[in-house]
Amino acid sequence: MTVRCQPVLGILGGGQLARMLALAAAPLGVKTLVVDSAPDACAGQVAPLRLADWTDYAALEKFAAEVDVVTFDFENVPAETAHWLAERVAVFPDPRALAVAQDRLAEKTLFRECGLQTPAFEAVDTRADLDRALAVIGAPAILKTRRLGYDGKGQFRIKQLSDADAAWAALGAQASAHGLILEAFVPFDRELSVLAVRARDGDFRIWPLTQNWHTDGVLSFSLAPALDVGGLQPRAEELARILAERLGYVGVFALELFVKDGQLLGNEMAPRVHNSGHWTIEGAVASQFENHVRAVLGLPLGDTAVRGFSAMFNWIGELPDAISVLNTVDAHWHDYGKQPRPGRKVGHATVCAKEARDLALRIDEIARALKREEQVAPALKVLG
Amino acid sequence: MTVRCQPVLGILGGGQLARMLALAAAPLGVKTLVVDSAPDACAGQVAPLRLADWTDYAALEKFAAEVDVVTFDFENVPAETAHWLAERVAVFPDPRALAVAQDRLAEKTLFRECGLQTPAFEAVDTRADLDRALAVIGAPAILKTRRLGYDGKGQFRIKQLSDADAAWAALGAQASAHGLILEAFVPFDRELSVLAVRARDGDFRIWPLTQNWHTDGVLSFSLAPALDVGGLQPRAEELARILAERLGYVGVFALELFVKDGQLLGNEMAPRVHNSGHWTIEGAVASQFENHVRAVLGLPLGDTAVRGFSAMFNWIGELPDAISVLNTVDAHWHDYGKQPRPGRKVGHATVCAKEARDLALRIDEIARALKREEQVAPALKVLG
Ligand SMILES: Nc1ncnc2c1ncn2[C@@H]1O[C@H](COP(=O)(O)OP(=O)(O)OP(=O)(O)O)[C@@H](O)[C@H]1O
Ligand SMILES: Nc1ncnc2c1ncn2[C@@H]1O[C@H](COP(=O)(O)OP(=O)(O)OP(=O)(O)O)[C@@H](O)[C@H]1O
Repeated sequence: MTVRCQPVLGILGGGQLARMLALAAAPLGVKTLVVDSAPDACAGQVAPLRLADWTDYAALEKFAAEVDVVTFDFENVPAETAHWLAERVAVFPDPRALAVAQDRLAEKTLFRECGLQTPAFEAVDTRADLDRALAVIGAPAILKTRRLGYDGKGQFRIKQLSDADAAWAALGAQASAHGLILEAFVPFDRELSVLAVRARDGDFRIWPLTQNWHTDGVLSFSLAPALDVGGLQPRAEELARILAERLGYVGVFALELFVKDGQLLGNEMAPRVHNSGHWTIEGAVASQFENHVRAVLGLPLGDTAVRGFSAMFNWIGELPDAISVLNTVDAHWHDYGKQPRPGRKVGHATVCAKEARDLALRIDEIARALKREEQVAPALKVLG
Repeated sequence: MTVRCQPVLGILGGGQLARMLALAAAPLGVKTLVVDSAPDACAGQVAPLRLADWTDYAALEKFAAEVDVVTFDFENVPAETAHWLAERVAVFPDPRALAVAQDRLAEKTLFRECGLQTPAFEAVDTRADLDRALAVIGAPAILKTRRLGYDGKGQFRIKQLSDADAAWAALGAQASAHGLILEAFVPFDRELSVLAVRARDGDFRIWPLTQNWHTDGVLSFSLAPALDVGGLQPRAEELARILAERLGYVGVFALELFVKDGQLLGNEMAPRVHNSGHWTIEGAVASQFENHVRAVLGLPLGDTAVRGFSAMFNWIGELPDAISVLNTVDAHWHDYGKQPRPGRKVGHATVCAKEARDLALRIDEIARALKREEQVAPALKVLG
């Protein structure tokens, strides 16, 4: 018997995604090492944390020497940092995939090239561009920063053409640094996400489609598998596969989709594990976190089949009282160990059931106990 | 929104049980702090580790000040240390319960008081005691140290009365320090364990009975729920409840049982999460680790229902190749991050299936790939 060395997975960013990746990596015998500039980054509670910002190359050099593979908790790691690391150590997903996902214009262009329709969009770099784009797209529309947007930040909803000045006042200053994009506002029937994983050897799997509800641009509730998706499931799988192969993608990613008149429209791609896939921890045979770790380390992928129906409550700003969740059968509490702050994702709860009607009963009960009937109302409607 | 403080669970001992407790505590928002004298204690990969031995009261004083509740990964923490800590911080299970479980004589006496039969046993402190005990019990019998035995260590099998000298040569030196016990050797039909949990408020639950197979005194394979247990399940539940209430027990414990002619005999009690309950991580709605954390922190207990059938391979000494497990549907790899060493528990794999026949197929396939047909043969026989 010889001394053994465990592989070390380096994670850029130490938020809840890194935390849940580290928790999934441990049983696989994979150590994790997290880099973040915040000493209280919540992944630091379950894995060693190196303090560094994305331009601290001395610290990153040390980090690269300590890990076998690097991946991301945070998709907005600067492209230069990701490329610099990729010259020193294996980085998955490839920084080029990251670069595409970081830019709403590149992303939507790629979607279309892969056969995935998108809302109408136009690049906007100047005030004059905005008028031109509005003339093409019309109102309602949404002006967004091309880069660095998340959780609905960096967006302005243009209800009528006369809102153009207000939109420019809100986002114009970011036009030169990050670029802007104007998108047609889609009065979608519902929002779905597809979670997919691709292994180093090209093996590709998706979990069943998830239906999502957002509040103020932030994910509020998810239901999986999405009901009555029919042909959308194979279609989403096909599109996700084409996209992943185009990008030579390795790891888990999510595609956020709008459904309008039975058609899929691509909203965005998250080149990482995704909030709408947290239910896979208890609701699927292999979670998105476990499969991401397996994929980036070159291990075979786990089964993406579901165990039944799952729903996820997102806890934004602060945690509600845990008791009603802890008292519900097959409900699972996830506290990220973060300080409360308005708009911050601080935890979630997943509720599972073999039958959809039991799921409805359980989430209804929790929602009543927490006086959060609004958060579950649209999902209860779907569950009938 | 105010600054929040997460509860901190202190764990005495930093082995795989502490590691899996820490992994289960994190989603509940519970931080863990581990004490062990070994710098490479494997729980230290997922939780902060304080280096101290059980008599380092300066270090333990600091530790007590840093945690809200103390529990055990290791049942042989000296009683004095446990009592000393209990004067400073909440300790669950109560050190008195620990003391009973540490002593095979006290344990078996308590079993009988609670209505659980045991193999015939006699205390042995001297060579003359051994002869007297053998005259009562006869051969075959097993001489065991009363304290500090684990994984079949500190035991000598007496096949015939003339083995008495050899038994005394092996264990006599430990008679004065730890005491010895002579037990009748039970030609049992099978071994079962009951995993139970009791909350601070007295709520009590058990998981379905598990069937276990040992090799050289060490757990080798488990199957849950044990098949064809009939009335043994309610009987085991009743006994476990009586025992837990007698001890004012808080947390998870295991009772190791022999079944002989349809009767339950108590072998021993483990006052902690137990190797035969590792399958609950994937195979039950709430795992033994989650429920232990919930119990000792005063949270409501989770559901102990199973999701289907589960089997566990124990990996002793060194890990086999992971690939066949990673490639099997609903099979789950657990590497404790330990260095290989003969006889050491270094990991396990749990295999789940909705139907018993699928479970049989899956474990058979893994066993063949690993050339470990022997490890699964008795379980395959039970599964038919
Ligand atoms: N073109 C659009 N038409 C209609 N609704 C939209 C459109 N774009 C965004 N939204 C709504 O706003 C939500 C957030 O938008 P988007 O995904 O662009 O934001 P983000 O900041 O990138 O958020 P995240 O990455 O956290 O999902 C969408 O899920 C959708 O509900
Ligand atoms: N009296 C007995 N009759 C028959 N078999 C026995 C007896 N005592 C022990 N064994 C066998 O040896 C195994 C280990 O014994 P025991 O539980 O006493 O050891 P231990 O060192 O306390 O192990 P652990 O706590 O790890 O289970 C039992 O599970 C059983 O298979």
